[in-house]
Amino acid sequence: MDVKEVKVMKKILSANDKIASELRVELDKKGILFMNLMSSPGSGKTTLMELTAKNLGEKMCVIEGDIQTTLDADRIAKAGIQAYQINTGPFGGDCHLESSWIKSAIEEIDLEKVEFIFVENIGNLVCPAEFDVGAHINAVVLSVTEGEDKPLKYPLAFQTSSVCIISKIDLLPYLDIKIEDIRKNIQKVNPKMTIIELSAKNGDGLDGWIEFLKK
Amino acid sequence: MDVKEVKVMKKILSANDKIASELRVELDKKGILFMNLMSSPGSGKTTLMELTAKNLGEKMCVIEGDIQTTLDADRIAKAGIQAYQINTGPFGGDCHLESSWIKSAIEEIDLEKVEFIFVENIGNLVCPAEFDVGAHINAVVLSVTEGEDKPLKYPLAFQTSSVCIISKIDLLPYLDIKIEDIRKNIQKVNPKMTIIELSAKNGDGLDGWIEFLKK
Repeated sequence: MDVKEVKVMKKILSANDKIASELRVELDKKGILFMNLMSSPGSGKTTLMELTAKNLGEKMCVIEGDIQTTLDADRIAKAGIQAYQINTGPFGGDCHLESSWIKSAIEEIDLEKVEFIFVENIGNLVCPAEFDVGAHINAVVLSVTEGEDKPLKYPLAFQTSSVCIISKIDLLPYLDIKIEDIRKNIQKVNPKMTIIELSAKNGDGLDGWIEFLKK
Repeated sequence: MDVKEVKVMKKILSANDKIASELRVELDKKGILFMNLMSSPGSGKTTLMELTAKNLGEKMCVIEGDIQTTLDADRIAKAGIQAYQINTGPFGGDCHLESSWIKSAIEEIDLEKVEFIFVENIGNLVCPAEFDVGAHINAVVLSVTEGEDKPLKYPLAFQTSSVCIISKIDLLPYLDIKIEDIRKNIQKVNPKMTIIELSAKNGDGLDGWIEFLKK
């Protein structure tokens, strides 16, 4: 990375952080909890949102970040809740979301009944962790099929999050992976992490997730 | 993205492309095939390399790209073949590999018996696709657990690759996913893609992969 790039990146990051902080305070005042979900592609973020919608209904809305397609926002809208799609494809296919885009998205949403805003960040376990989007809680979703070593290999996403949802636990019997090893590796990089294990397929662990949100 | 950043990025990309082209020509002269493997975290790239090593032995070597840890290079070295680890963590946790780093890595490898160089890029379905690393073949690995929509949502990785390995097909009976839908979506974004389906667990499809490499 040459010196010029570092300078420009610093400027972008500090502008991003300023908007993120303002957004956090503003939503606090409105009594709205803002959670930012980060993960690899296909870990089950959208499915988790569909299931959460069944419990929270119009109290929640979802901002979807994707490079291309409105597939995820369409799924959320079908669940009967407000969904807003950000596509980074037309702007160079950006690999993460930034706070100014979230701010613009929130301005388009009817917040009257909303108590929870979820952002589904771009499916990427690396870059989104470098950008504060203004959330009160960062959460990382890790599917058991991704392997027990991922927290060690992608530590920043786990270090900048306070809750980790281990998803697809119904597949454990068919994998050579022990959930204890996943848990151990999460705790190695972030000893304070709240860990929630769940299966969207059979509903295991879903009550714990909803309870966590309502607290 | 502000104008300054765009300018700097253009300069970096063109320097990267120049080194990549030179590397490709140099390896051609030596009769070495260089394949760049891209995928989400946990799609099974390292497992595929371990199995490939059983067939190609010392004819192959692997350059591992990771943000942190030498876990993957350790696994490859255990399989008895040359492994070289690039960690981007100390340099800002870069989310992709660049051609100059690959060039430096190749200079450290004993190429005498090597006919195949594989690069396991950083687990990320977005950024690595933007950087030519000098490979003759870009390949994308997609595990069936990631869902059938991923080619549509992350098109660049599929458009810059000529072969797609669909992995973990042994898990299909436990998922609500049809492999025909994955195939259809790959062909929508890249109609010329060679598709290889395999299971590292039971060995299905492995012969087809080795045959493809030897061609």
